[in-house]
Amino acid sequence: MTNINSSGSQCRIAIDAMGGDFAPENAVLGAFQAYAEAKNFQLLLVGKKEEILNVASLHNLSINEDIIVHTDEVIEMGDSPTSSLKKKLNSSLVIGPKLVRDNKADGFVSAGNTGAMTMSSVLNIGRIPGVSRPTLTAPFPNEKQGYTFISDVGAFVDSKPKHLLEFALLSSIFIEEIYEIKNPKVGLLNVGEEEGKGYLLTMEAGKLLKESKLNFIGNVEGKDIFKGKVDLVICDGFIGNILLKFAESIIPFLRAQLRNYADKGFINKLRAGFVRTPLRESLKNANYELQGGLPLLGLNGISIVGHGSSTPLAIKNMVLRAKEMHDKKLIDTLKNEIEQYSNTQNN
Amino acid sequence: MTNINSSGSQCRIAIDAMGGDFAPENAVLGAFQAYAEAKNFQLLLVGKKEEILNVASLHNLSINEDIIVHTDEVIEMGDSPTSSLKKKLNSSLVIGPKLVRDNKADGFVSAGNTGAMTMSSVLNIGRIPGVSRPTLTAPFPNEKQGYTFISDVGAFVDSKPKHLLEFALLSSIFIEEIYEIKNPKVGLLNVGEEEGKGYLLTMEAGKLLKESKLNFIGNVEGKDIFKGKVDLVICDGFIGNILLKFAESIIPFLRAQLRNYADKGFINKLRAGFVRTPLRESLKNANYELQGGLPLLGLNGISIVGHGSSTPLAIKNMVLRAKEMHDKKLIDTLKNEIEQYSNTQNN
Repeated sequence: MTNINSSGSQCRIAIDAMGGDFAPENAVLGAFQAYAEAKNFQLLLVGKKEEILNVASLHNLSINEDIIVHTDEVIEMGDSPTSSLKKKLNSSLVIGPKLVRDNKADGFVSAGNTGAMTMSSVLNIGRIPGVSRPTLTAPFPNEKQGYTFISDVGAFVDSKPKHLLEFALLSSIFIEEIYEIKNPKVGLLNVGEEEGKGYLLTMEAGKLLKESKLNFIGNVEGKDIFKGKVDLVICDGFIGNILLKFAESIIPFLRAQLRNYADKGFINKLRAGFVRTPLRESLKNANYELQGGLPLLGLNGISIVGHGSSTPLAIKNMVLRAKEMHDKKLIDTLKNEIEQYSNTQNN
Repeated sequence: MTNINSSGSQCRIAIDAMGGDFAPENAVLGAFQAYAEAKNFQLLLVGKKEEILNVASLHNLSINEDIIVHTDEVIEMGDSPTSSLKKKLNSSLVIGPKLVRDNKADGFVSAGNTGAMTMSSVLNIGRIPGVSRPTLTAPFPNEKQGYTFISDVGAFVDSKPKHLLEFALLSSIFIEEIYEIKNPKVGLLNVGEEEGKGYLLTMEAGKLLKESKLNFIGNVEGKDIFKGKVDLVICDGFIGNILLKFAESIIPFLRAQLRNYADKGFINKLRAGFVRTPLRESLKNANYELQGGLPLLGLNGISIVGHGSSTPLAIKNMVLRAKEMHDKKLIDTLKNEIEQYSNTQNN
């Protein structure tokens, strides 16, 4: 029996037990897996106490009830973020970020309603001074067997040029600290490589990025993401979100196409059977579960947004990522960098 | 020996012999293949006479020199569209669209510089009265083994809401006439399904689409493209172009990942070998060569833009598509529909 208790550690990660399509089961199981792997931290499970205890008992896991932060309301996946955050004040998505704000937790992770999670994190945890907009940063797999990060993938739409610069600053630091890529290459998503092309927004943002101290290489195109031409691609959250959802649909599309092929006869079925293993292995770095979730960067605390269909493995990795961000003092680094940047702007 | 001559047919399709990464070879070969398949039309090859004759002779094909429209300048793939169109007046990309304008050809197809091709087509062929912006429409494969069309994929960026409505009108007719999909379902690309979400542009366009007579079902997301939730997805050319280039990079990405997997040992190499055929067969409808190129809709004549790396097969299908658009009197239908629409707007 695994035993999660509330004593003896510095880092405290709160997890939304009610978030995701398979809550509370996957959330609770993922939390236990993270604890089993890393141990030297404290876990807080935010959600309906009874349901959490039920899952634990079903899976023969013992929980110290002290680690449960009981909330009796639930913001559902389909709820409107704005109105549900106002109405369901005693929900995990409201209480979780407040634990971070009140220094009762060092990070909060949730696979719940993305809009509500983002909004609640911004409202309750607050932004780092100097940041006008936080950003959700997503890793896309690339041909170099690493990741091309895209920022923003949908924290906000209708960004201004200075927001794009902030996304680049915040995400560059995240990549450097967490993925240990020195001085990450930054590209601006555009319809061509030439300067002075594309949206008005993009052209203005390009100027700001060029003047910054970032390792900005200029415009990149849609085809450069999988190629891994840069480490970080900057764009407005509208296009980033559409790209993320489109990219997430590639593997289901391949599966559907292979099923259709297999249905055409016995030989095809046999052939399709040989595809699964090599395809899965080839696309290992496309498995979002390994990265867990997407950090919401620019906040005055750690908040990680997970996929609605997060598995226990994905939840585990979200928790471990939050812990890593805490252990590496990422928020302090982000604060220092933003402060330095703001100073150069004011001088 | 195939023999292309200039007599005895009504429909005249002009082809840019100098356009594409493998010009004039692929362009000339594709033109011959189209003629071999359909015969009942006249072909015009626009480009450097000597080079065209060289390719024909190399491949043992005989050409009646009457079908060559000699141009001695070439707009290269990397040339700036604006300046090259001004400087290289005797290039295929300037002369081709002028042939359509002057009723010396019924359509022009090119795998050359996309920007120059688009701009020259708009400037020289001109728009249908009532159309403020033409659109490039691209077929994306979908799980239903058909296509989800996206409009616009990059004719222009920074569209206004009324442009998005025009894209939808033009592309709906194209899909209905050419792909024989009755009353195609139209969706507006957005970050969520709810109304009132996303860009200001998108929200305004949504209102116009809702009021139109189109079969508009509301917002769609990035994940709905491969699913085939609608027949036509409407978006600004900036995002459409980025999506198109991203989508085109999926198969090269899969290949690179499989190569990487195969390089890890003998068993992997063996396994990867079994993937090729089923994967290629499964992704048949993702092969752009079968659709040839992208129509530029809203012009007062037929213009089809091909991929820079077009094979002879792709060129052949571009030529045949141009012929089909002519035979089905697509431009007349577009004109009538746009006129009717403009009338309802003025009343």
